[in-house]
Amino acid sequence: MLEFQFMGTGNAGGVPLWGCHCPACDLARRDPTQRRQSASAVIRTNDGVSLLDAGITELADHFSFEEMERVLLTHFHMDHVQGLFPLRWAECERKIPVYRPDDPVGADDLYKHPGVFEFLPPCDPFREIDFGDFCVTPLPLIHSRVTQGFLIRKGNWRLAYLTDTVGLPDRTLAYLQANQPDELVLDCSEPPRDTPPRNHNDLNSALSIWHETGPRRLWLTHISHRLDTWLQQGGSLPEGVFVAHDGLTLSPGHDA
Amino acid sequence: MLEFQFMGTGNAGGVPLWGCHCPACDLARRDPTQRRQSASAVIRTNDGVSLLDAGITELADHFSFEEMERVLLTHFHMDHVQGLFPLRWAECERKIPVYRPDDPVGADDLYKHPGVFEFLPPCDPFREIDFGDFCVTPLPLIHSRVTQGFLIRKGNWRLAYLTDTVGLPDRTLAYLQANQPDELVLDCSEPPRDTPPRNHNDLNSALSIWHETGPRRLWLTHISHRLDTWLQQGGSLPEGVFVAHDGLTLSPGHDA
Repeated sequence: MLEFQFMGTGNAGGVPLWGCHCPACDLARRDPTQRRQSASAVIRTNDGVSLLDAGITELADHFSFEEMERVLLTHFHMDHVQGLFPLRWAECERKIPVYRPDDPVGADDLYKHPGVFEFLPPCDPFREIDFGDFCVTPLPLIHSRVTQGFLIRKGNWRLAYLTDTVGLPDRTLAYLQANQPDELVLDCSEPPRDTPPRNHNDLNSALSIWHETGPRRLWLTHISHRLDTWLQQGGSLPEGVFVAHDGLTLSPGHDA
Repeated sequence: MLEFQFMGTGNAGGVPLWGCHCPACDLARRDPTQRRQSASAVIRTNDGVSLLDAGITELADHFSFEEMERVLLTHFHMDHVQGLFPLRWAECERKIPVYRPDDPVGADDLYKHPGVFEFLPPCDPFREIDFGDFCVTPLPLIHSRVTQGFLIRKGNWRLAYLTDTVGLPDRTLAYLQANQPDELVLDCSEPPRDTPPRNHNDLNSALSIWHETGPRRLWLTHISHRLDTWLQQGGSLPEGVFVAHDGLTLSPGHDA
């Protein structure tokens, strides 16, 4: 058994954005199913839980200490790690390993006071890690901090989790072309723009990556209220492209 | 009208603490009224909202941008500022002033990317600030980061909000003796100990401060699961001493 679940599909400000009264933010205040928390996902197997980023702040309400096997971090921007700060004070003897990119700074005082977390040596890009019930390959991305995506593999099924990024490094693109994912989960913070934004994909750049790598389905994540408003106002997506939402699950051999 | 409300009365790990199965943590999982979020309080007047620290992470669910007048920070430990990170991305023209201690580092990248917050020059200790509907005097505390408490005054009514601290600096003690608060809100993270812990009061040191400053009532805050367990197991408090809880309100001339 392996299940991948989106927990947070919003950008750093989330949807609704504080103080904003655009159509997407107003809708999300009326209808909680339209809300987007900050970046988090989770992989569940029979062995336990692997957390992918920690943008959700109330993680203790979702996961017991006992079931948490490891944390995989894409990068150390606060909207991807903020959920770790209260959890670290757990007074437990077992440490939870954290797989991280090669970022000597980390976030605030996490390295200085890791508490229950053990920050492992930085991941080696392109070297697959075997967790027994599934494997993960770290893939370098293009962002304002050192950032890695993850190619998650169970048998022949592959899911690429690539956020935050604008475009892809050539080596990462080549690796994905040689190890084609079934499901591509990709940073797409913005609606189509004439020029892509800094640090994040717009829809045009996300679609380019999809076409270049060739997965069956593309799932957009790290979504801003601007992309949601664009969709609400009639913006359309090609067949095979979907907007993720908080709580959505994907599994090998099962359509969402 | 002035109303002071405790929003978070827990220490950095909160109650229940992740992974802990002590009596206080197990009770708080069964009974949400026993939960403690991290340090936050709020002052509401007819003019709007002044936030005292930002340990609550879902602040956007509690306050509209429009009503938020200002933020008063005691210090930059993450459990006191974590709620500001998502709020800062509000795309609004008005800036929200943040009154802060003289800490050149801040927390993570808050100073670099303040967004909608305007970090004012550091507060002058012992110099009263007049907000029109109430006044605030910053008072130095003793903690592992530069930290200030606040003496809140409306007319002759005074409430001292003093967390995080272990003991008090002599000048702060003398100031409180000369400007005696009606209500003393005080860091008391731990049950009675033979020697007080580092950085936070235990009950013995909190009671000493109460006796030295002489307010009518003492409210304990920044509470750990250890203090809650001690109370659950029969630990008793002198008359006039109360354990605060999330949501409790205090007002001039009204008993809680």
